[in-house]
Amino acid sequence: MTTLDETHDPSLQSWVQSANAADGDFPIQNLPFGVFRRKRGGEAFRIGVAIGDRVLDLAAVAKTRGAIGAAVAAALGDVEASTLNGLMARGPATWSALRLELSRALRSGADAQGDLTACLYEQSDIEHALPARIGDYTDFYASVYHATNIGKLFRPDAPLMPNYKWIPIGYHGRSSTIGVSGERFHRPVGQTLPPGASVPAFGPSKRLDYEFEVGIFIGTGNDGPIPIASADEHVFGLCLLNDWSARDIQAWEYQPLGPFLAKNFASTISPWIVTMDALAPFRTAWTRPADDPQPLPYLDAPTVWSEGAFDVQLEASLSTSKSDAANQPAMPLTRTSFRHSYWTVGQMVAHHTVNGCRLMPGDLFGSGTASGPTATEAGALIELVEGGKKPFTLINGETRTFLEDGDTVVFRAWCEGTGTRAGVRRIGFGECRGTILPAR
Amino acid sequence: MTTLDETHDPSLQSWVQSANAADGDFPIQNLPFGVFRRKRGGEAFRIGVAIGDRVLDLAAVAKTRGAIGAAVAAALGDVEASTLNGLMARGPATWSALRLELSRALRSGADAQGDLTACLYEQSDIEHALPARIGDYTDFYASVYHATNIGKLFRPDAPLMPNYKWIPIGYHGRSSTIGVSGERFHRPVGQTLPPGASVPAFGPSKRLDYEFEVGIFIGTGNDGPIPIASADEHVFGLCLLNDWSARDIQAWEYQPLGPFLAKNFASTISPWIVTMDALAPFRTAWTRPADDPQPLPYLDAPTVWSEGAFDVQLEASLSTSKSDAANQPAMPLTRTSFRHSYWTVGQMVAHHTVNGCRLMPGDLFGSGTASGPTATEAGALIELVEGGKKPFTLINGETRTFLEDGDTVVFRAWCEGTGTRAGVRRIGFGECRGTILPAR
Repeated sequence: MTTLDETHDPSLQSWVQSANAADGDFPIQNLPFGVFRRKRGGEAFRIGVAIGDRVLDLAAVAKTRGAIGAAVAAALGDVEASTLNGLMARGPATWSALRLELSRALRSGADAQGDLTACLYEQSDIEHALPARIGDYTDFYASVYHATNIGKLFRPDAPLMPNYKWIPIGYHGRSSTIGVSGERFHRPVGQTLPPGASVPAFGPSKRLDYEFEVGIFIGTGNDGPIPIASADEHVFGLCLLNDWSARDIQAWEYQPLGPFLAKNFASTISPWIVTMDALAPFRTAWTRPADDPQPLPYLDAPTVWSEGAFDVQLEASLSTSKSDAANQPAMPLTRTSFRHSYWTVGQMVAHHTVNGCRLMPGDLFGSGTASGPTATEAGALIELVEGGKKPFTLINGETRTFLEDGDTVVFRAWCEGTGTRAGVRRIGFGECRGTILPAR
Repeated sequence: MTTLDETHDPSLQSWVQSANAADGDFPIQNLPFGVFRRKRGGEAFRIGVAIGDRVLDLAAVAKTRGAIGAAVAAALGDVEASTLNGLMARGPATWSALRLELSRALRSGADAQGDLTACLYEQSDIEHALPARIGDYTDFYASVYHATNIGKLFRPDAPLMPNYKWIPIGYHGRSSTIGVSGERFHRPVGQTLPPGASVPAFGPSKRLDYEFEVGIFIGTGNDGPIPIASADEHVFGLCLLNDWSARDIQAWEYQPLGPFLAKNFASTISPWIVTMDALAPFRTAWTRPADDPQPLPYLDAPTVWSEGAFDVQLEASLSTSKSDAANQPAMPLTRTSFRHSYWTVGQMVAHHTVNGCRLMPGDLFGSGTASGPTATEAGALIELVEGGKKPFTLINGETRTFLEDGDTVVFRAWCEGTGTRAGVRRIGFGECRGTILPAR
């Protein structure tokens, strides 16, 4: 059972003043991990932690003389590491201990303030690399709403497959083309079958879409099946993931072996990994409709039901060439919560390994498009526009059926201390942003 | 156009006497690359080249004083490398130059014999690691015979999808569970839907199969689409690949996103990568039935037609607990040639990158099950036994519908100097062997 500790105390304040803003993503109760360097100077990438509008350089902290320096050095092992894989491999006791030491050192009045002040940079002055060396990337399909919405378009006669409510459906994706927020990529080119045609066409995708997913970073690997009861302990944390999709390429290529070139040209993740510890206050009950099958025993445990879900608010927005030229902020597309996921993160881990498949530190799962139960909670444009029949109108009056060149899709996410969690400190994920360049 | 040079001269003999045996896999005309260490002593893995029944330790060669030592050191860069990724990244000019130097140094009468004799070990005394750090693994589906045979079983109404003759169908596989020849793995456990059932069962797979594929190692990566005319230059070489498959798990899970747990528990490759240079004499014309569509321009080039295919003889055999106990050799299953592939290696490379997907040195492609045109040329048991209806009888009288615990599947492959290639020296791939342990 997930327990809260002093790091979750909502009254904690940091000596980094910007961390104390009420609506900030990175208060002292969060402390997400990433990999960064300063924008100029050709520095090596290294591990950092977000605090307010700053990043704490853990490689620099490890070289300070006090207790926090020693604690960081011990937890990281290789303090010059340019990925989180080493820390991920050390396991949840190390992750929690490091987070506790960082929380104490960053609190108002901490002795460490003197040493650590010199280890802070403004986030506006840094750039990110991928937080981990991602060996394998697996994309799940865990929203029954997305599976049903998309199924209706691809297979009107059988939108939801008979296996859907039994199996956390997943497939392998491409790790080499995963990029970090801020990336710009060319519209993919490929084969499509135009409506009514019997011979494929070749050219730039005309139905380019985003998919709003939650990214799940594996911490410790396995040798043999991971029991559902301990599955969450193998997860280092969550981020945001845009699984860009070329719907026209996908429709023509995906049978019988699944999506391939429709997905592997680019996937974009947010730079900060929000840890399972930081998310503990936002875990919530997982439910299934009464008529649905119960999970098979290898996917079932009391904690799946009591706290299997994560109530993470997900918000997608769009900037266009036109809105950028007018200096307008990104315009809202949709909003939902990850708590609607039909399958839990732990179930994904248990299922993935039940056959003996080996997970490695730094492996990434995508949740699948995290659509919610109503039409306005769709996690992809294809759902919002009903397969292309009904364009979506943006607040500046522009319309979109699919994405156009120059469009920037921005995902943000946060966990709120409202309702039954009144008083719990809000934490956020930062943003996941990507821009479409014209086809080559 | 592929050209032959002095390294292909069939009259070349090596001062390593075992390399001169007429039917050996590793004559001086081959020189495949792998990663090895001696079985005892906890040595580091390092790069080697097979010659006769020996392996030449390139890390040791690089430390010798003569011209060959300097050439090997220059080509490898990091002579202590435990993978071929660095050499793969250097490109075909480096690969060819290194092969030429090795050929000259290993020829009968070479001055280098004195230095190199101390750098040779018996292959029976070594063990292998994977030859490369495999970032991404992509499995194609390039045999139209396999696609048709398997399609009949999964989808009797539409065995061959409309896209098959237009697209080199592929999907992403799992790199973390790729192992090297000799591995033993547990029969996978998972969900299946028994015939007639509406609720899935859970337990060890009852329909475990092998798939005989050719593995394709990428050498140099890309930034943008790779033109078909230069696609082969990005390939370092070929090996053998067993894409073990749990047919009952696959049938229940594979829709709509493709195979997942049915495949990712284990894939086994042969340890030696036979280079594109070594295979040059065995390239042959690629043909399509007259009624089939012509390839789209991005998949078409004169050399695709003139030399797109590789005439590699593929032979699968099986050992059982019973035949092992009787000390019998592996029993024949099937034999075919990779030249029957509907799509060429170069077409796979061009297609994979046409959307901008990034390939990296050390990436692995599987060709897909390399079934040939007749029933006895099937590359998987499920085809041989017609989906389970007709057991296969082994030469010791045992029968198999699917694989049993204790079974060892052995693939061998070679290229022959017969027919129009009379006089060309035979080269071989060694073997790809894997054994099934009982489910955990």
